[in-house]
Amino acid sequence: MSLADVRALTFDVFGTVVDWRSGIARDGAELGRAKGIDLNWRAFADDWRALYQPAMERVRSGEIAWCKLDDLHRMNLDELLARHHIQNLTEQEIDHLNRAWHRLDPWPDAVAGLTRLKQKYILATLSNGNVSLLVNMAKRAALPWDAVLGAETAGAYKPQPQAYLRSAEMLGLAPEQCMMVAAHNGDLAAASALGMKTAFVRRPAEYGPDQKTDLAPEGAWDIAAEDFLELAKSLGC
Amino acid sequence: MSLADVRALTFDVFGTVVDWRSGIARDGAELGRAKGIDLNWRAFADDWRALYQPAMERVRSGEIAWCKLDDLHRMNLDELLARHHIQNLTEQEIDHLNRAWHRLDPWPDAVAGLTRLKQKYILATLSNGNVSLLVNMAKRAALPWDAVLGAETAGAYKPQPQAYLRSAEMLGLAPEQCMMVAAHNGDLAAASALGMKTAFVRRPAEYGPDQKTDLAPEGAWDIAAEDFLELAKSLGC
Repeated sequence: MSLADVRALTFDVFGTVVDWRSGIARDGAELGRAKGIDLNWRAFADDWRALYQPAMERVRSGEIAWCKLDDLHRMNLDELLARHHIQNLTEQEIDHLNRAWHRLDPWPDAVAGLTRLKQKYILATLSNGNVSLLVNMAKRAALPWDAVLGAETAGAYKPQPQAYLRSAEMLGLAPEQCMMVAAHNGDLAAASALGMKTAFVRRPAEYGPDQKTDLAPEGAWDIAAEDFLELAKSLGC
Repeated sequence: MSLADVRALTFDVFGTVVDWRSGIARDGAELGRAKGIDLNWRAFADDWRALYQPAMERVRSGEIAWCKLDDLHRMNLDELLARHHIQNLTEQEIDHLNRAWHRLDPWPDAVAGLTRLKQKYILATLSNGNVSLLVNMAKRAALPWDAVLGAETAGAYKPQPQAYLRSAEMLGLAPEQCMMVAAHNGDLAAASALGMKTAFVRRPAEYGPDQKTDLAPEGAWDIAAEDFLELAKSLGC
């Protein structure tokens, strides 16, 4: 099947659609000011994100039972707070900080690009975020998803094949009729191996000014774009 | 918790949001004209719908393995076509007719009402329809869902408790923070028994002019409304 057969675009979200680093740092700094905690909150965001893959790997490997991402984020947050000897937060404050992942802002081009793409394609998340995280994020940021799918609805974390295959199946489509959109070459490699079409969108500041990875496409992806507006243009939207 | 704590409205879809009887009859009649099949297509729609609960019951009881609604609709359609000795349809034509359930029109008040409700609440489907059916329907009819949930994402058909509980859980909410909106008293009874809030919306022509059931609320539902605009008004939207 060719690109003309694509019916749905499935999106990685953290880093591809939204800027997690700035959002986490912003909400951390706000809490820090209120509670007198002096930290480098960008570094805190990086440290929190660094615990993300290892936590999911514990689920993927079967070491721990299925856990939605909110719960993995919380386990990791508890670890980070202990590491920094932060002990003056209430349960409510910790929970609010944990939900900073529900309050991330989109990259400046994201909403305009998605709005154009939505005229022609089904737009679905295919994220490791849980449904409520993605729904709350979309509601706040006006992300116009047609369906909120991913790890929680598939019962598997990317890059496990089931995460991609089950999402396509729920959309009633063959993998070849879905195009995975991501700023991460690894995500696209996993999707491509299953037959999905692929679009790389460059997000060179996802990890801050010194980002070293995913600065360019590293595979024969169907599309490579600088942002969602260029992606829309490439797809004739 | 009170109505002020409700964060999400979860919607029954067939009959409550969309008019399945007219839609099925319309698409059936169109196919009938093209293929020279002379049938009462409204009666055909009624017969098809009459096979709906028994088919789901086979899944609920464990008699057959999990099957999405598209597949149950197809089993029932094959049975009806055999009953009427209709043998001149191609596989593609039968599949297209089966997907008439993806192409149902909303009741006249539905989109305007949902658009108002969406300003204040998370709007999710809580339908026995499968995800692709509901996504295709929403795309065609501009139904502004924040999340497409229900039997397929929960792995259980209403009125099984898991269908409601898992949907609330995916929204990150307690049942008490969700209000089930339905034109069917049985659906509301099941939701209410689990702690959900309830809104009855009267759809007196769902089953045509001679409808005998669900003409009035039959329980102490939190809200009873004539349509989605009245529901929006009742909820201060």
